[in-house]
Amino acid sequence: MINQLVSNIKKTGAPIVVGLDPMLSYIPEHVQKKAFAEFGETLEGAAEAIWQFNKEIVDKTYDLIPAVKPQIAMYEQFGIPGLAAFKKTVDYCKEKGLVVIGDIKRGDIGSTSAAYATGHIGKVQVGSNTFAPFDEDFVTVNPYLGSDGVKPFIDVCKKEQKGLFILVKTSNPSSGEFQDQLIDGRPLYELVGEKVNEWGQECMGCSYSYVGAVVGATYPEMGKVLRKIMPKAYILVPGYGAQGGQGKDLVHFFNEDGLGAIVNSSRGIIAAYKQEKYASFGAEAFGDASRAAVEDMIADIAGALENR
Amino acid sequence: MINQLVSNIKKTGAPIVVGLDPMLSYIPEHVQKKAFAEFGETLEGAAEAIWQFNKEIVDKTYDLIPAVKPQIAMYEQFGIPGLAAFKKTVDYCKEKGLVVIGDIKRGDIGSTSAAYATGHIGKVQVGSNTFAPFDEDFVTVNPYLGSDGVKPFIDVCKKEQKGLFILVKTSNPSSGEFQDQLIDGRPLYELVGEKVNEWGQECMGCSYSYVGAVVGATYPEMGKVLRKIMPKAYILVPGYGAQGGQGKDLVHFFNEDGLGAIVNSSRGIIAAYKQEKYASFGAEAFGDASRAAVEDMIADIAGALENR
Repeated sequence: MINQLVSNIKKTGAPIVVGLDPMLSYIPEHVQKKAFAEFGETLEGAAEAIWQFNKEIVDKTYDLIPAVKPQIAMYEQFGIPGLAAFKKTVDYCKEKGLVVIGDIKRGDIGSTSAAYATGHIGKVQVGSNTFAPFDEDFVTVNPYLGSDGVKPFIDVCKKEQKGLFILVKTSNPSSGEFQDQLIDGRPLYELVGEKVNEWGQECMGCSYSYVGAVVGATYPEMGKVLRKIMPKAYILVPGYGAQGGQGKDLVHFFNEDGLGAIVNSSRGIIAAYKQEKYASFGAEAFGDASRAAVEDMIADIAGALENR
Repeated sequence: MINQLVSNIKKTGAPIVVGLDPMLSYIPEHVQKKAFAEFGETLEGAAEAIWQFNKEIVDKTYDLIPAVKPQIAMYEQFGIPGLAAFKKTVDYCKEKGLVVIGDIKRGDIGSTSAAYATGHIGKVQVGSNTFAPFDEDFVTVNPYLGSDGVKPFIDVCKKEQKGLFILVKTSNPSSGEFQDQLIDGRPLYELVGEKVNEWGQECMGCSYSYVGAVVGATYPEMGKVLRKIMPKAYILVPGYGAQGGQGKDLVHFFNEDGLGAIVNSSRGIIAAYKQEKYASFGAEAFGDASRAAVEDMIADIAGALENR
């Protein structure tokens, strides 16, 4: 799947991923109204609004982008109907040829991680039948439990040709509280980065590993160091746009080949119509506003890479 | 909810929690067959088998125990139908007066953690209606992202009188890989324990905090230290039984009042009928085997606490 991701990135010339993290407050009135008219002001109604919102954004942007990253929490907060909308979104994006990164940040002891891996990127056996329950292409994984919490995900990756992004240095303000703590003079995130590099060597694609890393756009200097520690890991970079990261901060996340990083923007794309810059599209044409925001993001990053 | 947990523990005299982590391989043939006859060898069939299995175990043990801990991964691996069985299990256990600890190990940046907290222990607004999507009483939380990933869970706890168990030192063999790394001469898990203590002071119940900790039974010496660092945190102790922990290892997780810890056993209870010790019950009476295993576990821990 890492080969598919690299191929999609080369084809689109866009090392970006659209974060499908729909809050109800992002979804235009007319979309909500229609969904509530059909399903009531219920969890099912909210899930329908989310699904219709996602579908419009995907329809208006899929030809420009290599991948999407639905954040499962935003669906899980609407219970079972929300999770059904997550699954519907995953399936639809795959039909459109997009690589789907399930942002699930799971991680547990061995047998439990194995169950998560099975459910999200693997296949489960029921009697004589086999099912791929959520069937994302990549998932994000939390490393706090160490190797035996990560290995079951790697095993499933190898078997199913899927991929991982392991949390190394997250984009949030307090990520340093534990991740930056010095161990023999070096921060914990470097130690995690070294492990990612080690795990990744076990399962290499053509040019990059199935095992990638998450490093926040908000910490460009750390990205520079981590890029060297994990030369074969694709870096998923959250924190662009709404969280404060800009194209010029991102150049060091990329390798010399212009590959090796994929930058996520969620709110900045999916709620673009709410920004002054794209307000002229209006709420009715929110998908067109998202398309314009995608084009601007691609140009921003391309410009930064050219000028490095 | 911490007050309810303490009250249930005092009432039953059993500082234990039954981990409802059903693997299909634990579920007796006759239960699977019946479910598959009705729903086919499908995700729905697997979910029905899990639900019937859980219900029998709960029916046979609920009067002896204060709480259950369903591990969501074991349900998530069967997709949407599996998660519906999780929800059904949560609801049923609450009807039976049990405290439900959702073992979800979520944790993300602020706004995303807020969505998880809303979905699992909070309420979500849809139009003019409000829903409690999963409605567990406690959830487990991964601290790798630091305070701003944990605070949204605490905010919802305060509002809804729910509780948390934050991963401090996990029970698995490789937990030390990152958690034991020394920072200024002290292991990372102690630093996390200090934070748990600090977070917990913000939301105290009658005698213990809403914010508890997870510390594995497999590391009793570390439990002793952490007990002192977090005097007001209830400690959820996984790793008893199948993972290797025994009653005598657990005494230091408790405070002098005999409270402060709750010990989990999953496989050792729910798949008891598969052990030689309880084999005479037979697969048909698997619930009775679980009841006997619960009684033995209570006696083991009570004995260890008396002899300390």
